[in-house]
Amino acid sequence: MSRLLRTALVQQKGFGDYKTVTAATCEKIRQAVQKGAKLVVLQELHTGPYFCQTEATDQFDRAEAIPGGASCQLFGDLAKELGVVLVTSLFERRAPGLYHNTAVVFEADGSIAGIYRKMHIPDDPGFYEKFYFTPGDLGFKPIETSVGKLGILICWDQWYPEAARLMALAGAEILIYPTAIGWDPADNDDEKQRQRDSWILAQRAHGISNGLPVVAVNRVGYEPSPDKHATGIDFWGSSFVSGPQGELLAEAAIDTEELLIVDIDLTRSEDVRRIWPFLRDRRIDAYQDILRRYID
Amino acid sequence: MSRLLRTALVQQKGFGDYKTVTAATCEKIRQAVQKGAKLVVLQELHTGPYFCQTEATDQFDRAEAIPGGASCQLFGDLAKELGVVLVTSLFERRAPGLYHNTAVVFEADGSIAGIYRKMHIPDDPGFYEKFYFTPGDLGFKPIETSVGKLGILICWDQWYPEAARLMALAGAEILIYPTAIGWDPADNDDEKQRQRDSWILAQRAHGISNGLPVVAVNRVGYEPSPDKHATGIDFWGSSFVSGPQGELLAEAAIDTEELLIVDIDLTRSEDVRRIWPFLRDRRIDAYQDILRRYID
Repeated sequence: MSRLLRTALVQQKGFGDYKTVTAATCEKIRQAVQKGAKLVVLQELHTGPYFCQTEATDQFDRAEAIPGGASCQLFGDLAKELGVVLVTSLFERRAPGLYHNTAVVFEADGSIAGIYRKMHIPDDPGFYEKFYFTPGDLGFKPIETSVGKLGILICWDQWYPEAARLMALAGAEILIYPTAIGWDPADNDDEKQRQRDSWILAQRAHGISNGLPVVAVNRVGYEPSPDKHATGIDFWGSSFVSGPQGELLAEAAIDTEELLIVDIDLTRSEDVRRIWPFLRDRRIDAYQDILRRYID
Repeated sequence: MSRLLRTALVQQKGFGDYKTVTAATCEKIRQAVQKGAKLVVLQELHTGPYFCQTEATDQFDRAEAIPGGASCQLFGDLAKELGVVLVTSLFERRAPGLYHNTAVVFEADGSIAGIYRKMHIPDDPGFYEKFYFTPGDLGFKPIETSVGKLGILICWDQWYPEAARLMALAGAEILIYPTAIGWDPADNDDEKQRQRDSWILAQRAHGISNGLPVVAVNRVGYEPSPDKHATGIDFWGSSFVSGPQGELLAEAAIDTEELLIVDIDLTRSEDVRRIWPFLRDRRIDAYQDILRRYID
């Protein structure tokens, strides 16, 4: 018997003030629940613009306490009202001068089921995340909810097979990636296509290696940089869901907002792992050097 | 300045006696070198049929000493004659009752540059490899050759991100997968497509995670099983080369023999790693549990 989990991915334009953006998000969550979603996943740092395009200390004002901050209150209340499990992505103020990029998962009763602090932090021109986010210190632990064990990872984590593997080994039933990735408008079309293809492919492959479905939710639309000399970021949307053989189950548009609703069959993972028993044959006796920076 | 390595992939039907099959292989290698190839990669266990479809002790007669066996002599001599680096995949008889699935890399002077013993050994209906092959004990070490450091892995290894990562950390410049993978003819078309797509995607993703080109060489064509009740294997070919962003550079047919020749730009890896510096941000402080079978 299959165990279907109706899952909603909210792909949004994030450029706007907190009130406007979160109101739009809440409206999408309501629509998703009306359509039967039991799990709703939001994009990375969904309460406003992607503020890491420059390094500016006043951006830390956006951060909030977890629990206790305004967004925790807002989304916790909504999860409770609608009876839905909600994966949010917030800017956490843990202490003065200590901030994290944190996913907060709300149970359907409004309580916090668990949090995940982004472990791998990027730093590229236009993505100055090392300035803002202290690397996570909670490790790779799935969050137990009423709809299943959720392996939440965030954006840059999606390039690391180690992260997906650790979530799978710890019993995750789905890998979930709130994301903010986009193009430098100055890049040419070939480079843009390679980047987007890679992003989709790398995550589908995590599903394959671990026999798990993958949910990736990305921002969409252009966001200018506060730096007038910078080109801004054109977030490429393309939120998607893939199955435990990496098969694409649904994919959102590249350039428009979308509410993607997908029934994920959580029983298929064990079927696939029986024909492809990768976990059986891992050479854990020979992986020690994975813990090294480089083997030189 | 780019550093181009002209690489040949020999995708063959392997069903036939040793003499016929190896003669055909040698002819393909000659053709490849005539076309300028400096590196030639052969498919898994290319000297005859895929003999693991049943468990039969007399199949061990196919195994040979490395060095010293007939194939080592044959391919070593050919590598020397043609001045080409050759990646072969042989059935190694290490001691009576101790056998490995071993890639032997010949330097352009005919010497053995190094060997890799398949680390992950599958066992599925029709692929009874655990009966034949002792898991490798040489670890994941690239083989240094005159054309670069080759990260040789074999077939089932291709499903393990750990294997690719360890090769990359040890300095591999290309990931190379001799392979024997095919369909159960009894499976339906959807399942067949999912399996083939997964196979391509998982390997391209290893290239992405590690910023490396990938060369995968697979058998092609139907091979019946010695077991009259079994359906045999329809090897799906589809040998391919991808670049360090996972971009597909060339792909062979699903159902026919093919000699695929591709210029691989070995300088592109560093360019890609500069924009996607995944190795910089690995959380080696948090990967310890990768060494566990399961986290329970």
